[in-house]
Amino acid sequence: MTHDAFLGGRVHIWQPRKGYRAATDPVWLAAACPAASGQSVLELGCGAGTALACLNARVAGLDLAGIEMQRDYAELARRNLPQGARVLEGDLSRMPPELRARRFDHVIANPPFYSAGQGIRPNDPGRETAHVEDTPLATWIDSGLRRVQDRGTFTMINRTDRLADILAPLQGRTGGVMILPLAARAGRAAERVIVQAIKGARAPLKLLPPMVVHEGDSHPGDVSHFSALASGVLREGACLSLAAI
Amino acid sequence: MTHDAFLGGRVHIWQPRKGYRAATDPVWLAAACPAASGQSVLELGCGAGTALACLNARVAGLDLAGIEMQRDYAELARRNLPQGARVLEGDLSRMPPELRARRFDHVIANPPFYSAGQGIRPNDPGRETAHVEDTPLATWIDSGLRRVQDRGTFTMINRTDRLADILAPLQGRTGGVMILPLAARAGRAAERVIVQAIKGARAPLKLLPPMVVHEGDSHPGDVSHFSALASGVLREGACLSLAAI
Repeated sequence: MTHDAFLGGRVHIWQPRKGYRAATDPVWLAAACPAASGQSVLELGCGAGTALACLNARVAGLDLAGIEMQRDYAELARRNLPQGARVLEGDLSRMPPELRARRFDHVIANPPFYSAGQGIRPNDPGRETAHVEDTPLATWIDSGLRRVQDRGTFTMINRTDRLADILAPLQGRTGGVMILPLAARAGRAAERVIVQAIKGARAPLKLLPPMVVHEGDSHPGDVSHFSALASGVLREGACLSLAAI
Repeated sequence: MTHDAFLGGRVHIWQPRKGYRAATDPVWLAAACPAASGQSVLELGCGAGTALACLNARVAGLDLAGIEMQRDYAELARRNLPQGARVLEGDLSRMPPELRARRFDHVIANPPFYSAGQGIRPNDPGRETAHVEDTPLATWIDSGLRRVQDRGTFTMINRTDRLADILAPLQGRTGGVMILPLAARAGRAAERVIVQAIKGARAPLKLLPPMVVHEGDSHPGDVSHFSALASGVLREGACLSLAAI
């Protein structure tokens, strides 16, 4: 186990030394969730709870819930999250009755990035489950939208090349879809997208200007080279309001 | 009728004073088509032929074809395009046998921007047919992809809020999809997207950095305020290679 700092030390997360380890994706996801104090948030596939913990650090008084398929990670999430957060072990495609009975103000998800049989297959089984897709993205989106209450948000971060797979299940189900590309550098293709939908909204799809993560053309591996906006999100726990862009 | 200059006077197009009149969309579309001398290009819904004429001005020795539903516009396209260009009057969802018998190196399309019953419905019936969607975008894409030969490109320009409707019919049919957002200003949501697919390619979907059309924060209505790249495309007939971005 390691105890890793996020948000410039505002959050510490226990995670296995080997296996799936959170990088910046859950931090971006948490930043993009427009939760306000007193609201409820469900994370699908919450892993060790990094995104929920970051959200909790930014917004006080949230009602947090997570569902996680792997027992070890669900237990870690309970350890990493504040008392009162509800973490259930289970399969999001067979949502536990306790969650099925609820609607949340916001649902967030950082699904595995690789389809089974495609791309990187790490050796560690925990890392593999977290990175390799067993549940289709459409199921994540369908399960997520069902748990969001009207005018609540569903927010997902994923690889840009999955954009069509993300938009298709949203299409016809809800309007108010916003796409925020995350590009490592200015002028580069975006490697990640944050897609957010406001349930029941009728607003047309918006493709927002990319969020550029690093300043300059090269990557000296120094955090001080984050762009100002990225540094705000990653080091200071700033929110990233898609609706305000 | 008016005789309008495009590409800084390199191209002149006869178009009706009233009705659908080409603005910059066909110019962007033509710039994004990677046609090389000697290759064949089909435009679906070619209107008065503006995109094909711009393409012809940039690349010599193309084999040009267009299909246009409205007789008046098909006749104008014949007038506006060089001898040898083949313009057929017809419905792309019932492709004429002459076109159905062929495969093209490149297919381009600038479909109407508004669904029937949605958004602006201009009074002029010609303008309405050009702006209002009778044929679903999926049909444009399906008809277009069928006419492209293997490793050829299909390129479409449309409103960004139709992105999901564009990606869905491409999904599973072809890889090599690239999305180029066109944003009026830096930091603004993109109003248009150019979507290009390479038929039969397996490359993952790419979301390219936006092309910014205007410099600065306001619009003094002066062409000199185009960004350098936009000015190259719109005033000098430069190509816009998505694959090179």
